[in-house]
Amino acid sequence: MKRKVTLKQIAKELDVSISTVSKSLRNSSEIGEETRLKVQAFAKFYNYKPNNIALSLKNRKTKSIGIIIPEIVHYFFSTVINGIEQIANENGYSVVICLSDDSFDKEVLNMEMLANGSIDGFIMSLSKETQFKGDFHHITEVINQGMPVVMFDRVTNDILCDKVIIDDKAAAYEAVQSLIDSGRKKIALVTTVDYVSVGKLRTDGYEKALLDNGLPFNEDLIIKIEDVDTCEITISQLLHDRAFDAVFAVNELFAVTIIKTASKMGLKVPDDLAVIAFTDGIISKYSTPSITTVSQSGEKMGSKAAKMLIERLEAEHEDDEEEENENYTTEVIETHLIKRESTD
Amino acid sequence: MKRKVTLKQIAKELDVSISTVSKSLRNSSEIGEETRLKVQAFAKFYNYKPNNIALSLKNRKTKSIGIIIPEIVHYFFSTVINGIEQIANENGYSVVICLSDDSFDKEVLNMEMLANGSIDGFIMSLSKETQFKGDFHHITEVINQGMPVVMFDRVTNDILCDKVIIDDKAAAYEAVQSLIDSGRKKIALVTTVDYVSVGKLRTDGYEKALLDNGLPFNEDLIIKIEDVDTCEITISQLLHDRAFDAVFAVNELFAVTIIKTASKMGLKVPDDLAVIAFTDGIISKYSTPSITTVSQSGEKMGSKAAKMLIERLEAEHEDDEEEENENYTTEVIETHLIKRESTD
Repeated sequence: MKRKVTLKQIAKELDVSISTVSKSLRNSSEIGEETRLKVQAFAKFYNYKPNNIALSLKNRKTKSIGIIIPEIVHYFFSTVINGIEQIANENGYSVVICLSDDSFDKEVLNMEMLANGSIDGFIMSLSKETQFKGDFHHITEVINQGMPVVMFDRVTNDILCDKVIIDDKAAAYEAVQSLIDSGRKKIALVTTVDYVSVGKLRTDGYEKALLDNGLPFNEDLIIKIEDVDTCEITISQLLHDRAFDAVFAVNELFAVTIIKTASKMGLKVPDDLAVIAFTDGIISKYSTPSITTVSQSGEKMGSKAAKMLIERLEAEHEDDEEEENENYTTEVIETHLIKRESTD
Repeated sequence: MKRKVTLKQIAKELDVSISTVSKSLRNSSEIGEETRLKVQAFAKFYNYKPNNIALSLKNRKTKSIGIIIPEIVHYFFSTVINGIEQIANENGYSVVICLSDDSFDKEVLNMEMLANGSIDGFIMSLSKETQFKGDFHHITEVINQGMPVVMFDRVTNDILCDKVIIDDKAAAYEAVQSLIDSGRKKIALVTTVDYVSVGKLRTDGYEKALLDNGLPFNEDLIIKIEDVDTCEITISQLLHDRAFDAVFAVNELFAVTIIKTASKMGLKVPDDLAVIAFTDGIISKYSTPSITTVSQSGEKMGSKAAKMLIERLEAEHEDDEEEENENYTTEVIETHLIKRESTD
C-alpha cells in the first residue's frame, strides 16, 4: 500500500508552510488564489485524504484523551498531567501525551497525528510560537470536525472552547500586596522576555498592587531575564546598587538564583531581600531558605480540565441530535500564597 | 459490530491470569494441557482475534514512537524523553507518551492501546509493580507480533530486546570510592524500600567499594526510607548519634532533606557530613550547598534508545525477507560524578 501523503510532505514539496497547506485545503481566502489552487491540485494528484474525524467520532469512542503541552521538564506541566491522569483513570479513560517543544509546527503535527482516530478529545496548553504567531487554524479545524478541546494556562481568546486558567493578574497582585504589607517599598518584578500571555497579566497585577498602595511604578524595576545563566549577572549589579528590597519572580529558577546571588554578596534573605516566586515547583520547597510561592495549582487545573472534557464527551454521546452545544465555560482556579522562609 | 473479545475478558471469564491466556494461545508448554485447550476452545468460540500488528506493520508505518514510563514528575524521565524527542524529530518520527503510574495493569492497557496501530515501536521503562510481579507477557506479545521494543533503565533479563542501561553498580561504586578517597570512614547508604532492580545494584556497588577499601560493611548503615516525609525523622536520630560522616543517597530529595536536617542540628556540610546523590535533577544544582551527584545521563539514555529503535524500524523495512533479526544489544551509558559543594 502506498503511504498516504501528509500535510508536512505537501508543505515541503511546495516550499510553503504547513499552515498555508492546511488553509488552502479548506479554501481559506487568507491564502492567495495561485497558492491555493497549486496546493489543492497537488493534494488531489497525490490523493491526499484529510482526517475524517467527525465521521469516526460518531462511530466509535477510543476512550482516550490527548494532551499537548509545550514541555515536560517544567514541573508545572507534570502536576497538570497528574491531575488529568487521576480524573481520566477514575472515568475509564487512557491518556496520551505529546510535546510541542514550544514549536508551532510540532503542535500542528502532533494534533494531526492524534486526531486521526487515536483519541476522543484534546487538553492542551499553547506553544509560545503559536501564541506569538496567533495562528490557531489547527485547533479550529479539530473543533469544527467535532472533537472537543479544553485549553489550560496558555489559552487564547481567539478560540471558542472550554478553558481552565488561573487569574494571573490577581495572583501577582496578592503576592506583591503581601510584600507591601510586610513593609517593602522597592519591589522588583523579575520576568522573562518571551511572548507568553501570562507574563503580561502578571506584570499588570504587579503594577496595580503598587499603584493601589500609592507606591511609584518604576519601569527600571521590571527586570527581563533572557535565561537563568544571565540572571546572576543582571541581578548582582542591581543588588549592588540596593535598587530593591523585595523581588517577585515569575519562576522559581529565577528566585533561587537571586537568593544565591544575594547570599554570595553577604545579603540576608529575607532581612535584606524578600523573595516570592510564581511556581508549583519543588526547588522552592527544598532550597535554603525555602521560598514563599504563589501556587499555580497545576494539579487542580489538570483535574478540572479533564472533568470538563469528559463531561463534554459523555454529553455528546447522549445528545447526538444536539450537535452544537456551545456553552463554553472558562474556569478560573484559585491560587494561594504558600509562605516559607524567604519572606517575613 | 460486536465488540471483539479481549485477552482480559477471556482471563476473567475463565478465572485465570492474563498471562496464562496469552501463553495458552501461543500454545506454550509452560501451561498445563487442560488449561491450554480450554483457553484455546474459548478463544475460538468467541472468535478471539489477536492484534495483527505484524501484518499492519508490513503495510504501513505510522512514523510514531510510543514511550511508556512509570511517572512524569520524576526529573530523570523528563530528561530521557527530551533525548528521545530530539532523535525522533531528527528522523521524522513523532512521539507519544503514556504513564504506567508504576501500575502493572496500566502498563498492560497502555501498551494494548498504543499497539493497536498508533505507533511503530516502543521505548519503555518497567513499572515497579511489573518488576515485582515478574509478568512480562504483554511485552512478549508485542515483540512476538513484530513490534520492536527498547527498554531503558528499569529493564528485565526475562525479555530479549534492545536495552539501554547505566551500570548502577559501577556508578554507586565510584560515588562511594570518592567519599572514601576524601577520608570518610562511616558512609551510609540512604535508599528506598521498593522492589526496583536498580536499588539492589546500587547497594551492591556501595558494598563492594567498602569491602575493596577494607572498610566494614555495616547493615545498620543501609537506611531504607519509606518517603521524604519520614526521611527527616529517621536521619535526625542517626545524625544525633553521629552514626556516619558521609551519605550516598539514591535520589536528590533524600539528599536535600538530609542536608536540611543536618543544618538544623548545627552540623556543617561537607565538613561534618559529605553528601552525594544519584540524580539528574535540578534541586541538587540549586540547593545550598549545591549537591555532588552521580549523573544518570537521562538524555543520553533517551537518545540512544531512540537511535536503537529507529535503526531497527528502518532495517525491518529494508529486509522484509529476514524476519528474525534477533541480534539484540544492551547499551551501557557512562555515568559521571558532578562535583559540587556537598563534598570536599
